[in-house]
Amino acid sequence: MRTVYVNGDYLPETEAKISIFDRAFLMADGVYEVTSVLGGKLIDFAGHLTRLERSLDELDMKKPAAFDNLLDIHRELVRVNEIEDGLVYLQVTRGSDGDRDFVFPDRETTEPTLVLFTQSKPGLAQSPQAEKGLKILSIDDLRWGRRDIKTVQLLYPSMGKMMAKKAGCDDAWMIEDGHVTEGTSNNAYIVKGNKIITRQLSNDILHGITRAAVLRFAREAQMDVEERPFTIDEAKAADEGFVTSASAFVMPVVEIDGQALGDGTPGPVARRLREIYLDESLKTAV
Amino acid sequence: MRTVYVNGDYLPETEAKISIFDRAFLMADGVYEVTSVLGGKLIDFAGHLTRLERSLDELDMKKPAAFDNLLDIHRELVRVNEIEDGLVYLQVTRGSDGDRDFVFPDRETTEPTLVLFTQSKPGLAQSPQAEKGLKILSIDDLRWGRRDIKTVQLLYPSMGKMMAKKAGCDDAWMIEDGHVTEGTSNNAYIVKGNKIITRQLSNDILHGITRAAVLRFAREAQMDVEERPFTIDEAKAADEGFVTSASAFVMPVVEIDGQALGDGTPGPVARRLREIYLDESLKTAV
Repeated sequence: MRTVYVNGDYLPETEAKISIFDRAFLMADGVYEVTSVLGGKLIDFAGHLTRLERSLDELDMKKPAAFDNLLDIHRELVRVNEIEDGLVYLQVTRGSDGDRDFVFPDRETTEPTLVLFTQSKPGLAQSPQAEKGLKILSIDDLRWGRRDIKTVQLLYPSMGKMMAKKAGCDDAWMIEDGHVTEGTSNNAYIVKGNKIITRQLSNDILHGITRAAVLRFAREAQMDVEERPFTIDEAKAADEGFVTSASAFVMPVVEIDGQALGDGTPGPVARRLREIYLDESLKTAV
Repeated sequence: MRTVYVNGDYLPETEAKISIFDRAFLMADGVYEVTSVLGGKLIDFAGHLTRLERSLDELDMKKPAAFDNLLDIHRELVRVNEIEDGLVYLQVTRGSDGDRDFVFPDRETTEPTLVLFTQSKPGLAQSPQAEKGLKILSIDDLRWGRRDIKTVQLLYPSMGKMMAKKAGCDDAWMIEDGHVTEGTSNNAYIVKGNKIITRQLSNDILHGITRAAVLRFAREAQMDVEERPFTIDEAKAADEGFVTSASAFVMPVVEIDGQALGDGTPGPVARRLREIYLDESLKTAV
């Protein structure tokens, strides 16, 4: 039985409940972060905290009272749940004033809801999937226009994951105006002639914490990085592909819509970046 | 203290809680309906039930066990909460298998969550707003691409309502590719030269229950109806405007982005349709 955190209390997971009037339940009015745990330590924690603050600001959402204690809460959950490798999920919602209205509740009197829980994933960094690589299905991107804000509006990404599964694939890449935006829960990259190509930051994609770190490490390793939109046909003709996310780190892509990339096995750039990312991010884990 | 319904139980509203792992809370994986109550009776109930079933089907979501008893549950809540005029809100979610995953939980073993609650709105049909009309702000439509499914992904409509409020307006109309899609929680109409113009049904807008009824009554009354997209400039130059929704019925629009429509007071077509709608829908209330 996990211990989870809800608004100041550490509770058994089966007792962790929120009001039916919570705005995340009624109106998807909430934001979240997922931080990886490796060897009992938090990866890229500062980056996740900074992005959380930005998400809250963009939605004019109040910081939860415990904002300054988030590192302690993360650590306490990792400790009590004995997480060696895994994740800490955090969600902040606009809370509830006890009823339903499109108009935001009074900011002064309505406290945000803060929920955190862990997921244990032994051997997270040694995922067998990283040896096999991902098979990707391309689908239309039907999400809303502010994907830079990490909201809980995840119904379409969830549907996309199901479409991929049904098609015998591992994940989906989403396409808008002919160009790939990103994966259902990760940023998307291709490699062509030793050049790493990934979409530039905008409101169209999540500003991945892992993306920022991986691009920095790539540049430090003298790799050539180009930030621009790419088409799905360009992706299918690439030498290799990969995705990045907080929980998958750097994960090779070996197939798109049934078309093998390169020789259909994880490519050298993705492999090397995964190694570098895991090495470097462990050094700054807290 | 209201009595609300949560998964088979009638509870005091302050005890009405759902798991933090509910997919509506974590992933906006839920759909809803709002049915008006006038004189203690439910307006257009059959239409709402049919649309709920369609929303569930479109998302491959299971019907809650109590689906066939929904009329009884609505009536019981209206009775115990002594609702003369008001609303019944209903939400179905994909439930929870006790953890978080983009992949849908097992359909066989995971029960949907069913929540219903009432809102008392004395004099709902005699709203003073209907005498004054609405001032509208136009904003970009940033919502996802399946607005025909009535999901709880209402963050952007909620933000739109706040943008309108900040601009001294009552509501917002959303614009995509130069054309009005709809209001934040209602369908949008203009009237020009006695012709009622409203966007045709597609994935771009909600398939309003009140919209269907109002258009039927308009045609029965020999009014000219044209279903096509219209621009915001066309709207500003219209003789009058209005919106329809389950809780606002037919509500006149008198101003868009500071530009008065006609003489800036509720127009005759909107007034007449409101009257007809209220008369006719009361006849079929249950």
